[in-house]
Amino acid sequence: MNGAQALIRTLVDAGVNVCFGNPGTSEMHFVAALDSVPEMRGILALFEGVVTGAADGYARMADKPAATLLHLGPGLGNGLANLHNARRARTPIVNVVGDHATYHKQFDAPLESDIEALARTVGWVKTSTSTAALAADAAEAVAAAQAGQVATLILPADVSWTEGGEPAAAVAPPVARQVDESVVRSIVDVLQSGESTVVLLGAHGTRERALRAANRIAQATGVKLFAETFPARIERGAGVPAVERLGYLAEQVTYQLTDVRNIVLAGAKSPVSFFAYPGKASDLVPDGAKVHVLAEPLDDVAFALEAVADLVAPDIEPVLQEARRPGLPSGDLTPQNWVDVIGALLPENAIIVDEANTSGLLLPMATAGAPKHDVLTLTGGAIGYGLPTAVGAAVACPDRPVICLQADGSAMYTSSALWTMAREGLNVTTVVLSNRSYAILKLELQRVGAESTGPKALDLLDLSRPDLDFVALATSMGVSGTRASTAEELADQFRAAVEQPGPSLIEAMVPTLF
Amino acid sequence: MNGAQALIRTLVDAGVNVCFGNPGTSEMHFVAALDSVPEMRGILALFEGVVTGAADGYARMADKPAATLLHLGPGLGNGLANLHNARRARTPIVNVVGDHATYHKQFDAPLESDIEALARTVGWVKTSTSTAALAADAAEAVAAAQAGQVATLILPADVSWTEGGEPAAAVAPPVARQVDESVVRSIVDVLQSGESTVVLLGAHGTRERALRAANRIAQATGVKLFAETFPARIERGAGVPAVERLGYLAEQVTYQLTDVRNIVLAGAKSPVSFFAYPGKASDLVPDGAKVHVLAEPLDDVAFALEAVADLVAPDIEPVLQEARRPGLPSGDLTPQNWVDVIGALLPENAIIVDEANTSGLLLPMATAGAPKHDVLTLTGGAIGYGLPTAVGAAVACPDRPVICLQADGSAMYTSSALWTMAREGLNVTTVVLSNRSYAILKLELQRVGAESTGPKALDLLDLSRPDLDFVALATSMGVSGTRASTAEELADQFRAAVEQPGPSLIEAMVPTLF
Repeated sequence: MNGAQALIRTLVDAGVNVCFGNPGTSEMHFVAALDSVPEMRGILALFEGVVTGAADGYARMADKPAATLLHLGPGLGNGLANLHNARRARTPIVNVVGDHATYHKQFDAPLESDIEALARTVGWVKTSTSTAALAADAAEAVAAAQAGQVATLILPADVSWTEGGEPAAAVAPPVARQVDESVVRSIVDVLQSGESTVVLLGAHGTRERALRAANRIAQATGVKLFAETFPARIERGAGVPAVERLGYLAEQVTYQLTDVRNIVLAGAKSPVSFFAYPGKASDLVPDGAKVHVLAEPLDDVAFALEAVADLVAPDIEPVLQEARRPGLPSGDLTPQNWVDVIGALLPENAIIVDEANTSGLLLPMATAGAPKHDVLTLTGGAIGYGLPTAVGAAVACPDRPVICLQADGSAMYTSSALWTMAREGLNVTTVVLSNRSYAILKLELQRVGAESTGPKALDLLDLSRPDLDFVALATSMGVSGTRASTAEELADQFRAAVEQPGPSLIEAMVPTLF
Repeated sequence: MNGAQALIRTLVDAGVNVCFGNPGTSEMHFVAALDSVPEMRGILALFEGVVTGAADGYARMADKPAATLLHLGPGLGNGLANLHNARRARTPIVNVVGDHATYHKQFDAPLESDIEALARTVGWVKTSTSTAALAADAAEAVAAAQAGQVATLILPADVSWTEGGEPAAAVAPPVARQVDESVVRSIVDVLQSGESTVVLLGAHGTRERALRAANRIAQATGVKLFAETFPARIERGAGVPAVERLGYLAEQVTYQLTDVRNIVLAGAKSPVSFFAYPGKASDLVPDGAKVHVLAEPLDDVAFALEAVADLVAPDIEPVLQEARRPGLPSGDLTPQNWVDVIGALLPENAIIVDEANTSGLLLPMATAGAPKHDVLTLTGGAIGYGLPTAVGAAVACPDRPVICLQADGSAMYTSSALWTMAREGLNVTTVVLSNRSYAILKLELQRVGAESTGPKALDLLDLSRPDLDFVALATSMGVSGTRASTAEELADQFRAAVEQPGPSLIEAMVPTLF
């Protein structure tokens, strides 16, 4: 078999059996080899940002990596923004980036560029230099990914096409570290100190098992719980202990952490401001408060929380969120009422991909008591993650409805994800929150203290002139679309969209908050 | 004034008065400052690949840089593919990439990443570390760009917002080197040696002045002329000396260079294969042929060619292409006949942005005798350059009709350029060649010698299922669209589109060649 065949066989043997791709000439042997390994599913996207965002969404839900197939430096470049989000989510991904044949690189052909330098900015990278070494390099890349990284394997065309490849055995995946008893005991002392204390949950600390333990700890010690601002995946809804997320704005976090003396990190990082603002603090730990680490993000966070809970709350059961939905609203859509439509009608076992940005401010409240669901959020701030991530989540969980709540400005970075949804018949209901502006920037323009807000500045934040027509956009890519201006229309259309198999899109005319 | 104001004033004073942007929070002071410098025009794009492609197209036509405004690492990442093309075109561009405030970077906030590493892959880079130094750094960036580079200035938010900025004077732009007389004389010896010789024209060697000199040389010495495969900008049509381009496929080049003993480079690089193929040569210089350099790409190529022409052809006038158009074809569209519609109806003084790829194989012949026009081509092989480059060309030359000939697969990387065309009322007629496949890859799959072409492989090269609807796509972004299935329809729609001001799009149903 050739290198490409050995590579794909190795990936499959290591459990990587989905490859999102946007290939070019240097990847043609990899593409040809797909037919020789039936277990590998190839999924085409029309743009690399869709490829990488889909791989992120897939792994967040499947808890194992997908592969991507990208075309040299420019292909990887187009995928970097969503790989940045994946890096922040600690999502395992195995990028296979085709490169020129080893002997061709010296000629500086038009597509030659420094692929390693690009890949290094998002994680692990290795260039495979021989067909004999390729499969072992691939196994190493999978293990690197399984350690919570974006791993990039650069595949020169001749390494791919040369005969003599042999599959390599999977490398044992890393096991999450379990924290020492001494750490657990020192954290128990903090929790029982009587001082105002917050436990901040992140990474796998926002999954159900960890939330149950954290809830028991809070009941027993009176500490407050928060989830990190942008969890990679948070389990919530009826039957799961509720937890409030730290706010996006520094002012919100300052309020949430008022008078706190201790912050215990369970998979989360110490809170910092998303951006810097003139005259405002970047470090959001209150003056004089101490930060204690129970578990690092890649540790076994649930184990650590359970170890603490078993000491401080051995006989306490977690308090679970009650089932409770908002009533269906009526009248013109507003930033306040559209979320109630989602809360009222969210289907069982849903996956919400949330890139609603400013329009989604009230979403967590409206969906708090809806049936148990997962929420995936924008971990790295690189917008254009919603539609692609919904693709990946739907591929990972074909039996679950995916609800993609998508701000209009952000949708336009990676809108061709709709085409992949149609091609693969993915069960994704996309609601585009169409406020026709970069609303977050209108807010930020004030917040950064920019003096002037003249017409040229405002023009750069305005998405009207011309208005985007998301129904036509969906139609152009084979996804059926409708438009809702009232809460009643949104409810009717959302119900119908969720019931029908395959993708659909609703353009919800929700005015801007600002 | 603050740093941002001083920066924009410095750019304008150095002749940079267009800024294509897709800003975020860290760029808000730059955005606010736009209103304080009336000479700077800000143009919004919905995706960074449109921003950078537009800057490339602008500078190729304006012969001076535009600025871009990009949001941290992910924003630059999204722009890298078209910056790669710009690097290969030696296009001057000044990227302004916003970054976190200098003191905020230590906190590793979600959007933190290694911007310098990304920027270095496409050219010059400098991070401005103080408001006092910012304007001088900007002047340096403009000069770096004017040397034929992509120059990236990283702008921390606090450097932008701090008061005390002062504009800096422009740095004198570099002057293209004029080759020594000794080089000219040695090249004359080669040209007059009687051996089979080719002059390969590149960079500014494909502009009219250089073409006139090269044509005189060819007449006097009998050498053959070729333009490089993918010129950044080539002037051609009636009244300009005609020149054949080197082919894209190695087999074509081998044929074009049969029995050649000398290759004289005038602004071009020595010919190499675009990709490597098993068992085929990468270096396309014929065995035993010698390569001679008359002018490097950044030299004054026209001066060098004129110096040679004045020695070998002092009394010879260039032979100019006669005006000659193909007849209007009829019947269903084919890869052969659609180009004749363009050739027959190309308006006066047009700019053709050519990303027609396989569908455009016969375009050069069909337009050879059309009215004088410029053609911009895909210099770096990073697809998705056509629509954005057309935006930039139209901004640079508002009085010239821009004809964007766009392959369907490539269109989907940067399709939101249509929205910017609508917003700015740009006079761009886009013809999408809709063959519903990555046709080039079907060809390449055979050419690389991939053994199997099973259904999974072919599926990754197929753009049907669902079919893309480019009329709906254009409509979604405020551009009027029509569809043509016959040559008569294409002619009618093309005529109407060219006559009407502002952008329009024609989806031409041209079947694939392969």
